[in-house]
Amino acid sequence: MTTVLKLGGSVITRKEERETVDKARLDGAAAAIGGALAEGAVERLVVVHGGGSFGHPAAAERGVSATGGTRDAAALAEIHRAMGRLNERVVAALGACGVSALPVRPLSLVRRTDTGLDCPGEPVRAMLDEGFVPVLHGDVVVHEGAGGTVLSGDELVVALADVLDAERVGVCSTVPGVLDGGEVIPEITGYNAVADVLEGSRATDVTGGMAAKVRALLAVDGTAAVFGPDDLAAFLDGDNPGTTIR
Amino acid sequence: MTTVLKLGGSVITRKEERETVDKARLDGAAAAIGGALAEGAVERLVVVHGGGSFGHPAAAERGVSATGGTRDAAALAEIHRAMGRLNERVVAALGACGVSALPVRPLSLVRRTDTGLDCPGEPVRAMLDEGFVPVLHGDVVVHEGAGGTVLSGDELVVALADVLDAERVGVCSTVPGVLDGGEVIPEITGYNAVADVLEGSRATDVTGGMAAKVRALLAVDGTAAVFGPDDLAAFLDGDNPGTTIR
Repeated sequence: MTTVLKLGGSVITRKEERETVDKARLDGAAAAIGGALAEGAVERLVVVHGGGSFGHPAAAERGVSATGGTRDAAALAEIHRAMGRLNERVVAALGACGVSALPVRPLSLVRRTDTGLDCPGEPVRAMLDEGFVPVLHGDVVVHEGAGGTVLSGDELVVALADVLDAERVGVCSTVPGVLDGGEVIPEITGYNAVADVLEGSRATDVTGGMAAKVRALLAVDGTAAVFGPDDLAAFLDGDNPGTTIR
Repeated sequence: MTTVLKLGGSVITRKEERETVDKARLDGAAAAIGGALAEGAVERLVVVHGGGSFGHPAAAERGVSATGGTRDAAALAEIHRAMGRLNERVVAALGACGVSALPVRPLSLVRRTDTGLDCPGEPVRAMLDEGFVPVLHGDVVVHEGAGGTVLSGDELVVALADVLDAERVGVCSTVPGVLDGGEVIPEITGYNAVADVLEGSRATDVTGGMAAKVRALLAVDGTAAVFGPDDLAAFLDGDNPGTTIR
């Protein structure tokens, strides 16, 4: 069984401090992941992390977004390097908890075409087959006809879940689930039922808020869950904490 | 027309000093590449560089080679990071010469199977289509059944030339060509004619010497050349300096 787990950028970094990891949160997540793998609660695991205070300011300063492309290779390389610095920290934190983590850089692998993302599955699948835990991240990617654009971690999670036929997708965010007036909605099975609630909440970063997350996760074949950091261990143990989306 | 250019690790680094770039040589190569692209002498260019004093000691210390694999993710990640440090320097040097260079990390893209390397062409082709110059390198890659092993820059050049249907392959080495008693052999069209000469020379690094290079380049569909740093500009201008292999 394959699980794709997203660690939100605002979970593992301090969004208000440039390029600063939230060490307690990152180490806590790494320990939960290491524990779940050691117990055999999770088998084939892919980790994707967001950009937080590494990727977002780097992209915003250079005017690069998911739709606004650039042909300035130096600008793309700078954003990619900022994300590489965070990725190294995540890989190291996982390694310290006994996880056989290997970095996978989306700029090297994923491209955006007119019809959406193209993400070859073989390289990631080969890592899983050999017992490694691939660690990907929001990044810049080549965008057909537009140079390069931002790829959000959320988009990548959905593309990977699809290409890897993942049974479970977990999105670990700073909130305990999809909220309706402060209460976690336990299950979402269609967008219309929650459209009013979601579209009232404003996006919190350049790569999409909760409405975009839910819409994307509804398109996933497997079961998806949105939950907070305190529920990561429960999710990895097979529970359905937070909001389940199917 | 697509050209794949290998910059040897011993050309761009000081092999005897750990993780030290040969700045004059690297800047000279970057200037030649920038000039050829600006003049339109070269259109679609892929650069691959070797490991030199970054990759080779990192791999040797951890006992990882092209045939000796490891499942130690931390060891693989360390070797990969050492190569990443060199790759950043190469991308930056090219960028300073006006080249729209973007890093491509083989660990994210290439895997080794029983039948050889599997290197998806689309991600690199997409970069070329958008006017970028992908910069790849010798690396560690996932090896089916063996964890991870070393991928040499030479192997990668041949795989890329194949998947991209490259018309020209250039291997910029520290020697001015394939040598026979100090003289450059102008042309090689088959291995047997030069086997005695090549097998007399011993391999100079862990990822294969001149005999392996020639054998691999003979398998390339396009025209390949092996030449020294002084001939890089001539090669990019369309000449056939050093030894031509076809």
